[in-house]
Amino acid sequence: MNLHIALAQTPFLVGNISANLQTILDYARDARDRLQADLIVFPELTITGYPAEDLLLRADFIQQANNAIYELAQHLPDIAMVVGYPEQTDNKLYNSAVVLHHGAIIANYRKQALPNYGVFDEQRYFSAGEQPCVFELNGVTLGLSICEDVWQAGIVAQNKAAGAEILLVLNASPFHAGKIYQREQIVCTQARQARLPIVYVNQVGGQDELVFDGASFVTNQNGDIVLRAKEFEPHVSVVEFVDGQPQPAELAPMYAEISSDYQALVLGIKDYVTKNGFQGAILGLSGGIDSALVLALAVDALGADKVEAVLMPSIYTQQMSVEDAIAEANLLGVNYRIISIEPAVNAFSSLLADVFAGRQKDATEENIQARCRGVLLMAISNKQGKILLTTGNKSEMSVGYATLYGDMAGGFAPIKDVSKLWVYKLARYRNSLSAVIPERVLTRPPSAELAPDQIDQDSLPPYEQLDPILERYIERDQTAEQIIAAGFLPAHVERAIRLVDRNEYKRRQAPTGIKMTPRSFGRDRRYPITSGYQGMNLSK
Amino acid sequence: MNLHIALAQTPFLVGNISANLQTILDYARDARDRLQADLIVFPELTITGYPAEDLLLRADFIQQANNAIYELAQHLPDIAMVVGYPEQTDNKLYNSAVVLHHGAIIANYRKQALPNYGVFDEQRYFSAGEQPCVFELNGVTLGLSICEDVWQAGIVAQNKAAGAEILLVLNASPFHAGKIYQREQIVCTQARQARLPIVYVNQVGGQDELVFDGASFVTNQNGDIVLRAKEFEPHVSVVEFVDGQPQPAELAPMYAEISSDYQALVLGIKDYVTKNGFQGAILGLSGGIDSALVLALAVDALGADKVEAVLMPSIYTQQMSVEDAIAEANLLGVNYRIISIEPAVNAFSSLLADVFAGRQKDATEENIQARCRGVLLMAISNKQGKILLTTGNKSEMSVGYATLYGDMAGGFAPIKDVSKLWVYKLARYRNSLSAVIPERVLTRPPSAELAPDQIDQDSLPPYEQLDPILERYIERDQTAEQIIAAGFLPAHVERAIRLVDRNEYKRRQAPTGIKMTPRSFGRDRRYPITSGYQGMNLSK
Repeated sequence: MNLHIALAQTPFLVGNISANLQTILDYARDARDRLQADLIVFPELTITGYPAEDLLLRADFIQQANNAIYELAQHLPDIAMVVGYPEQTDNKLYNSAVVLHHGAIIANYRKQALPNYGVFDEQRYFSAGEQPCVFELNGVTLGLSICEDVWQAGIVAQNKAAGAEILLVLNASPFHAGKIYQREQIVCTQARQARLPIVYVNQVGGQDELVFDGASFVTNQNGDIVLRAKEFEPHVSVVEFVDGQPQPAELAPMYAEISSDYQALVLGIKDYVTKNGFQGAILGLSGGIDSALVLALAVDALGADKVEAVLMPSIYTQQMSVEDAIAEANLLGVNYRIISIEPAVNAFSSLLADVFAGRQKDATEENIQARCRGVLLMAISNKQGKILLTTGNKSEMSVGYATLYGDMAGGFAPIKDVSKLWVYKLARYRNSLSAVIPERVLTRPPSAELAPDQIDQDSLPPYEQLDPILERYIERDQTAEQIIAAGFLPAHVERAIRLVDRNEYKRRQAPTGIKMTPRSFGRDRRYPITSGYQGMNLSK
Repeated sequence: MNLHIALAQTPFLVGNISANLQTILDYARDARDRLQADLIVFPELTITGYPAEDLLLRADFIQQANNAIYELAQHLPDIAMVVGYPEQTDNKLYNSAVVLHHGAIIANYRKQALPNYGVFDEQRYFSAGEQPCVFELNGVTLGLSICEDVWQAGIVAQNKAAGAEILLVLNASPFHAGKIYQREQIVCTQARQARLPIVYVNQVGGQDELVFDGASFVTNQNGDIVLRAKEFEPHVSVVEFVDGQPQPAELAPMYAEISSDYQALVLGIKDYVTKNGFQGAILGLSGGIDSALVLALAVDALGADKVEAVLMPSIYTQQMSVEDAIAEANLLGVNYRIISIEPAVNAFSSLLADVFAGRQKDATEENIQARCRGVLLMAISNKQGKILLTTGNKSEMSVGYATLYGDMAGGFAPIKDVSKLWVYKLARYRNSLSAVIPERVLTRPPSAELAPDQIDQDSLPPYEQLDPILERYIERDQTAEQIIAAGFLPAHVERAIRLVDRNEYKRRQAPTGIKMTPRSFGRDRRYPITSGYQGMNLSK
């Protein structure tokens, strides 16, 4: 028997059930009319968007979602639809997938594996299903699974045992670097082991700190990919199954990691800015590498006409910084303005003369400069309705090398989960597409320019040491002893870990930003601020 | 048989295992020597503190905690100790209670009910135990439960069925208004239904957004309280059981709610400031009710000599505001300084003249004033090593009536979960102890004083309407329709809900503060920033 299955790699708006319902109908009509699909499969929790977080605790929201499913069943009787929704029954809520056909619900599956780690809180909301669900269409038996189900042992085999000839998987699987490859490996291995073709449909789009990359695919029972959809774009693909075997279909090449990373950042910015209704974006352009990269990302996400740069030099700003910042704006065709912060800094210095009298200069004076920039940028943002993008990277966020309400001020922090060395890699990648960042920015030593002749390495270990130490401590939970044993200098390890431990308070007030690593700051890493834990206790 | 059981209502420092170990030993020695106790019961997860959050994902931390239990077993062989710890076995982690006696582990219980709602994420870390655990001491059979266990049906009865004559419950039960009464009601009902005396031991102290109130107690098998310990203080009590029945012991009266609320705020401030090593606290004193209350709380928590007030008038500040602020500082014996913000505001106005040219005045100009205050306060905080306390209340946090990086700037936000009307009640309560807030502050209409003759009710519904609307929408998940049906004006309901929905981005960058209601902002309420949900959709 033949079966045409459409993979609806759709964007959804969390919380907006009526808009999501319309998206489902539009995609289903297109799949039926243009692609002659018999069946269309949507991502996990299609109707609410993912993750809807504590909206799922509201009875009215759940009621709306369930009503929408009943309404949907009345439409498009001649194409079967697999749609994800939060299923309310008695006092329990399930993360479910429903199959609608000929105006009726012909199957309903409840997710069995509920992830409650990392960014996921599904056990906060949902009860776990306990059995597989298969249904028949055109004489073919299909099974249903949802996301985490296929990362666990047993559930794919359970579907095979229940008679499934094809397994449909609805997903909201967020991106991090390397995830696309990892996901294919795991799912293809499951398919091969169970001898069961798998149709894997993933959501696409940015939602607060998460980016969903799409990259839906189909694997045959040998674990070979026969269809690979575009990454980072809404898309509908179709695959034909003949006698239960998927036929070769559109096949994008496996994606290059640096290119995927860059696109994830672009999509994360684009969706945060547009879904939240901003007129555009502004940012402070310092002449350093971080703001250069964020400017390029913002332009690629929103268009040059929607982006504005603000240069805010001080007496510590080198002339080459101003030159490079202007060159960046010009290369990208972005309007910029220059506002000196000196008058504001001087006003505060006078007002605080009594407070500071007889005390040494310290970070306070540097923070005032950063905060004057914050006030200026926020005023422009407020007046113009454009979001302020912060430009801090993960290395800085980790060790607190940033000023609260200063350079940390803003609505969205695109590269907060990107280490400094990775920032350089992404900048070079972007320059390989077209030259937008002057070479000098890529080669001069990084500096916050808050004190005379300051460079980052006055205060921090060199990034070649710092970044891998941070990755081991934050993302892999290694101890100081383990990191030192791996060959890093004890003094660098000690300094890095102490700074990470004591700067949780800053991170807690940082704007949200895009998850790019297996463990980002945000929902992903939940540390106490008040803590006696000493990641670094060599001195004891 | 006779048995003396000590209830160790102890403070713990999250993450500091060696300090917690020492606290356990100190309390156990005291209970043995001074109180002749046979057994001492500590709170939940004694050894790590609660909640240790993602520290529990670190193998080194778990190893340290388990080592500490083995070390503890070697001490004080002549008093039995019940201690909470994260028990590592193979690949699973349990929230466990161990009984140590004569140098050995004589019993070990694994928590069965793992809360994963509200502020709790226990299923992120722990596997659930599956059976009761009873042990014998002096011929008496005792059962063990941990916190959530006794809020569920079945687990108390399970202990009775397993032969327990007394149930020991280890807790880390955080405070909110009314919780002490609610907790006693639930536990006493469980005792009465199972005909089983219960010894309930709770942690005490502030930990980030949580305050643990202590208020440990003992109920007999009729559900009558026979021992009630102090609230909000470290304390050790003892109860004697004769033939399985608890004898009358120290019995604090049931606490008055407004007094408990005030003490919770004081303890929350005290522990946040001292555990994080600050030299003291500063705050902006406006002459309004919110900063007046926070000043009193800070002085009661830290002492007048550790607190400093900063008055920052502008051209919109009324003379009576300055007078009242000075009166507040004087009544509490707090040093204050006055810094006009005009020079800084004028500097920014000049710098931004081009940006603002041809545009109407709006919230931007108000935000600049608030942010100049933020810069000044943070500079004083940075220079002196004193934490900046913010003074915003829950009504403001809910509707976004506050300036990011302005009045929202600070390290801790004590009253962010206290509604405006509740602020007045607490202020009157504090004045009933001794007059510290001028009467005029309690009676004049509240104003942000950011524009000429501004009062809050120009922008917001009256607080008598606003506060109950917010409580229904935020804490009880009611819909607009339900709130209107309860008698509130549709226009007020609509405005309040719209503002709540659109201000999640501000709350996400707010400092942490004390949970005072059943649902606070923070770990307790996890809403998406990007959201199409319309709590208010009457217009559709």
